[in-house]
This record gives sequence, C-alpha cells and structure tokens, in this order.
Amino acid sequence: MKIDLLNQIRETNPVVLNISNFVTVQDVANGINAIGASPIMSEEIAETDEMVGISNAVALNLGAFSKPQVDHILAMGKAANAQHKPLVIDPVAVGAISYRKKVALDLMNQFQVDVIRGNAGEIAALAGVAWDAKGIDAGSGNQDVVEVAKAAAKKQNCVVILSGETDVITDGEHVARVFNGTPLFQLHVGSGDMLSSIVGAFCAVSDGDYFEAAQTACLVFASIGQIVADQLKEERPGTFAARLMDELHLASVADIEKIAQFD
Amino acid sequence: MKIDLLNQIRETNPVVLNISNFVTVQDVANGINAIGASPIMSEEIAETDEMVGISNAVALNLGAFSKPQVDHILAMGKAANAQHKPLVIDPVAVGAISYRKKVALDLMNQFQVDVIRGNAGEIAALAGVAWDAKGIDAGSGNQDVVEVAKAAAKKQNCVVILSGETDVITDGEHVARVFNGTPLFQLHVGSGDMLSSIVGAFCAVSDGDYFEAAQTACLVFASIGQIVADQLKEERPGTFAARLMDELHLASVADIEKIAQFD
Amino acid sequence: MKIDLLNQIRETNPVVLNISNFVTVQDVANGINAIGASPIMSEEIAETDEMVGISNAVALNLGAFSKPQVDHILAMGKAANAQHKPLVIDPVAVGAISYRKKVALDLMNQFQVDVIRGNAGEIAALAGVAWDAKGIDAGSGNQDVVEVAKAAAKKQNCVVILSGETDVITDGEHVARVFNGTPLFQLHVGSGDMLSSIVGAFCAVSDGDYFEAAQTACLVFASIGQIVADQLKEERPGTFAARLMDELHLASVADIEKIAQFD
Repeated sequence: MKIDLLNQIRETNPVVLNISNFVTVQDVANGINAIGASPIMSEEIAETDEMVGISNAVALNLGAFSKPQVDHILAMGKAANAQHKPLVIDPVAVGAISYRKKVALDLMNQFQVDVIRGNAGEIAALAGVAWDAKGIDAGSGNQDVVEVAKAAAKKQNCVVILSGETDVITDGEHVARVFNGTPLFQLHVGSGDMLSSIVGAFCAVSDGDYFEAAQTACLVFASIGQIVADQLKEERPGTFAARLMDELHLASVADIEKIAQFD
Repeated sequence: MKIDLLNQIRETNPVVLNISNFVTVQDVANGINAIGASPIMSEEIAETDEMVGISNAVALNLGAFSKPQVDHILAMGKAANAQHKPLVIDPVAVGAISYRKKVALDLMNQFQVDVIRGNAGEIAALAGVAWDAKGIDAGSGNQDVVEVAKAAAKKQNCVVILSGETDVITDGEHVARVFNGTPLFQLHVGSGDMLSSIVGAFCAVSDGDYFEAAQTACLVFASIGQIVADQLKEERPGTFAARLMDELHLASVADIEKIAQFD
Repeated sequence: MKIDLLNQIRETNPVVLNISNFVTVQDVANGINAIGASPIMSEEIAETDEMVGISNAVALNLGAFSKPQVDHILAMGKAANAQHKPLVIDPVAVGAISYRKKVALDLMNQFQVDVIRGNAGEIAALAGVAWDAKGIDAGSGNQDVVEVAKAAAKKQNCVVILSGETDVITDGEHVARVFNGTPLFQLHVGSGDMLSSIVGAFCAVSDGDYFEAAQTACLVFASIGQIVADQLKEERPGTFAARLMDELHLASVADIEKIAQFD
C-alpha cells in the first residue's frame, strides 16, 4: 500500500466535491478538511459543470435523497465522467430499501463509477446476492464477503470497498483486506460516509490507480480510528467523533505504518 | 417506571424512522444510535411505505419544514397509522410562529399521534392556552404546566411530554413528572429533538404502553444529561454534547436508578 | 471596541434568524446559542414575514443553495429591509464559482445588506478584483486585503468583514483590524458561517452601529478561538470545535480584553 498518498493529499489539498446526505454532511466536510483535502458541497444542478471543473474528485452519497437530488446526482456523475474526474459512490441503505436500490442501479447505468463503498448489505444488494440488511446497518448473510465484493465489482465494472470489521477492497480480480479498525465506527453515524469522501481524496492523488487509492484510504481511515480507540478506556462514541477529527489531522504516515495490518 | 426498557432497546435495536429537521439531524441520528437503537432518515415520499415497513417507530420533527416536506410528513404519519407503528411528533416553534401552528394542527387532524413532545410554549400552543413563547425557546406563561400538558393531551387524544426543568408527562388523566436534568440541555440545540426520537425508541419496545414509554424515555434522557453535567466543573455546552453521546451508550439501568427522581 | 456588547447579548438574548447552508447549520445554531443569543432557522418562504417579525437580526448564508432557496433568501432579505432588521450576508464560494457570484450579486441588487462577511477570495469577487480563490478556501491574490475590503464596502454600500489571519473590517472609509485568532478556525468547516451569524447577534444589540458591531463580533470570536487554541498542545480540530462552544459560553469580557489585539 502507498500510505504515502496521505502526504500527497496534505501537500496538494485536492478539492473533493460532494453530494452529501443531509444527515452527516458536516462531519463529512470536516473529515475531508481534517485529513488535508478541501471539501465543497453543492445543492444546485445549475453549478454542476463548474463545480466539477474546480474539483479533483467527486463523491456522491445516495443517503436520504429526494427526486430533485437524484437529477442532481445524475448530472454530477455524468459531468465527472465527461471531465475525467474520479467518481466515488456510497449507496446508503440500498440493501434495506428496494426503492433506493432501484434508483442507485438506474443511476449507475447512466454513468461509470470508479469506486463504490458500502457495507455488506449494500454491496450484496448491488451484486444481486441475497442478504438480510437492517436499515442503514450491514445486517447479516451467509455469503463470503470477498465473493460478494468481487461479484459487485464485476457487475459494476469498478473498484468495490465492502466495509466492515475487515474491509474488503477489490477490482473484481485482485483483493486487498484491511484488518485495522474499531467497533466505535459503528457507534458513530456517518463514519462510512466520511470514508467514502476520503476515498475521493485518495483517488485525486492516485494517478488513476483507484484500486490502490481505495485500499490505502481504507487502511489510513481504519488505522486512525484504531489509534483513537486505543486512547479511550471505554466505548465513548461522542469523544471518539471529536478525536477522530483530531487524529485525521495529526496522524502521520509513520503512525499508521506502525499498526497497519492488511494483505 | 420501567427503566429496564433501556436494556430492551439495547438488546433488540429497534429501527427508528425520522423526518428530522436539517438543523439537528446528525445529532438526532447519533443519539438514537448511541442509546442502542438504529436510526434511519428519509427525504423522499416515494419510499414512505417501505421505510415505515422496516421501522419499529416513527418520529416526525416539525422544525424547519418546507411545503414538500409537509406532504412527506403527512404521508409518513398516515403510513405509521396504517402499519400500526408508534408515532411521535415534535412541534418545533409552533408557539412562536402561527404558520407552524396551523400546519401542525392541520397535520394532526389527518393522522393520530401517539406522543407529542415539546417545550411549554409549544405544548401551550397545541392546547390553545395563552403563552409567551420566544422563537425555539419555551418562553414564559402564568399557567400551571401540568394543566397545560393535560389540556393538550385531551385535545390531541395522545400522550404529551412537556419538557423543561421538570418534565411533565401525561395521557390527559394520569401525570408523571421527572425532576432530573441539567440546564446544559438548553445550551445544546437539538437536545429536545434528540429526546423526541429517543421517545420513539422507547415506544418501539413498550408493548403499546406509550405513557410508560414516554415517561421512561424522559427519565433516562434527563438522568443521563445530569450524569454528564455532574462530570463537568463548568457549563461546557460543547463538551456536554460529546459526552452526552458517550453516556447514552455507557449509562446502565443501575446508574440511572441511582439518581432517578420522579413521581 | 465595545466588547461589552457581549454582555448585552447575554442579557437580552436576541433572536437571530438564519437561512443557513445545510453543511454547517447545527454548528451555527449551537454557536449562536452558546454565545447567549437565540437561533432560529427557516426553510419555508410562507413563514418569512412572521419569522423576521420575531427576530432581532437576519443572517443569510449563500453556501449550497438551490433555486427555491434563492427565492427564500430574496424574500428574507426584502422582509429584513422592510422591517428594519439588521441583515448579514455570507457569500460562500462566490470567488470560486461564477454561478454563485452571479446569484449573490443579483440578490444584493434587490435588497440592502448591512454587513457582508467572507474570506479574501469571496470579498475580492464581490469587489470585482482579480483573485485566485480555491473552492471554499480563500486562495491567494496580490492585492492588499484592506483595499479589497474597502472596494467591496463601497460597491455594496455596507460594512465588509474580510476574514483571515487578520480580520479587516471596513465601512469603505474607516478600517479596523483584528489580529487575534488561530489557524484552527481553518481546520474546522463552518467557523466562518458561525462568525457571520454571530455578527448578526452583535448587530442586534448595536443600536444601528453595524461597523462597531462587526468589529466587536470579529474581536470576540477571534479571541475566543485563540483562548481555545492556547489550551491545546497540538492542532486538534475536533477538540477545538467542542471547546469553541464551551468558551463561547464561558469567556467573559475581561478574558477577551486581556488578549485583545486590534487597531
């Protein structure tokens, strides 16, 4: 893994354009900012081309969308493709709500995604694999998560990140796994949304190797979460959220290399 | 009070569906999550039936709504009734803004609410009692708050929570009062919104006894706030907000029983 | 500077009405609340006149707007003028996105603003001065920031705050500068949005002297940020955000006078 991509983010401050869901948007903006990139958010379709033009990566979050937002997401995805900017999708709750799955699949037929990040329930839904998702949570299933992720990657022809206790990252052929992390991520709503946009920041400095960018983003984010968790004596989700921002800014490549566990 | 309902939330992780106002939505989601339930938010009317279907309670926040959101709130309330899911309403600022009062009363004519949670100014407005509300704050009035709450409960035929230094909970006949709490709740915007959605989580595990659920939710939330306040030497609203999430996750039934004050 | 205006806010709790961008709205509400004023937010044009009526100042944030929100912003600005309430504008990213600049200038042709607060890139755009803005960040330019701010103030016929390492406040003739602050403000998204709404709170207690209100708001906010930064051994953006709320509530006029640096 090229953990050094983290330094490239901090040196070049890539602009990451987001359509964020309204639930976690400030956290996502702060996370992008803390790690060293520059967040920008949009709600107006008329500024799409210009917004994509000043950005180095685009991250589209499909949580809590309304119909006008779907049009906006579509325009943003097409503009990202047209302007050759890396495009990351976070398909929130597509495993639990069939309407969201239909909209997400429909959108992904109209533009080419570079990276999809979701939990097991969400990735299973996109792969067409049976899974018992629970609301915004991963739920449970019998399938091997590596196979689920590979199936989704092949189907959508992109890199897939299946987040969980172990993160699985695959381009459909090659597979990387990240073993770092902490259960506190599940206790803080928006951890996944934040990772998705941070994946955008890594894609922006990756020279087009999105498989490398995706796995490095996962390793850096999971390791930083683990660094914070190790500072806490108890499971403190509120304190975790604040310190996660601290360490996204403070953690060095060396700090991460010291604890990194992946294959 | 059945404080043990808290353990039932943690064991069964009920899904609480929210239409949240955009001001406090992340805090509300994190609060639901921290106490042990599972939050989900929606902005799209097309997914209403399905969303209600996967949920164990519905909480509708009437803060900062636009016209399309009113349609969405209406559909959500009707679906909650049709699918027999407990329904909680938070009528933000209906005491200060007559437009909001009109919309709120109009909505409540079209579906049956199980629990309303508001401050004195908001509950007085729904009861049709004179009160000098101030923006989103409670304001002041001469009426006895217990009588105000009872009048609102009778008028809307539901359980009413009138939040304040003392919380008053009533079904129009019986009255419970919770004396725990801290002034820090007033210093953190969204404390009330969070409580309303947490009431939803308690309703979800209450076997239909919403009066029990409402008073227990108030006792648990107020006590946890007090536990946090007791840890702080000064009034620190930012630190309070973070630690409130910590203790929503950590506080045990025994911790709450130790300080609980109610009648 | 009348730092004592801070005490007047805490004694009279002015209501500050906001159209806030969805990215930072909770932070803005909490910041207004913590400093001692009372925040209220709106998303519905039908409640405009009534909302302005109960408010003591109006703050309009032009970050992340959609077309219906532009109509709402316009109605709010006109109502603030008609009801003689102080009006503050935050023109987010007008330096980077020409669509936003066009909309912002168009709005300001239709109502009279009392105070504009932005970073160098945003103020330069409104002044019609060349500047290399970067997304939501200030970017860089060769012009003297005092001249840029004066040009914008003359053009818009109002007080202008150009925020940065040094804050420049001007009515087009007179200039005040605030030297307090901390780089941590840049590391926390929404610091500027929060300042803009806090300027509204100071305007509400200023007896119409918005130049005085604007510079005092900058001094108080920058000093409180510096107080928090001095408590931290490292750059901790998450901890900074929480403690900023703490100190907005706790810091006294004397605490600020002790470190205030301005001319």
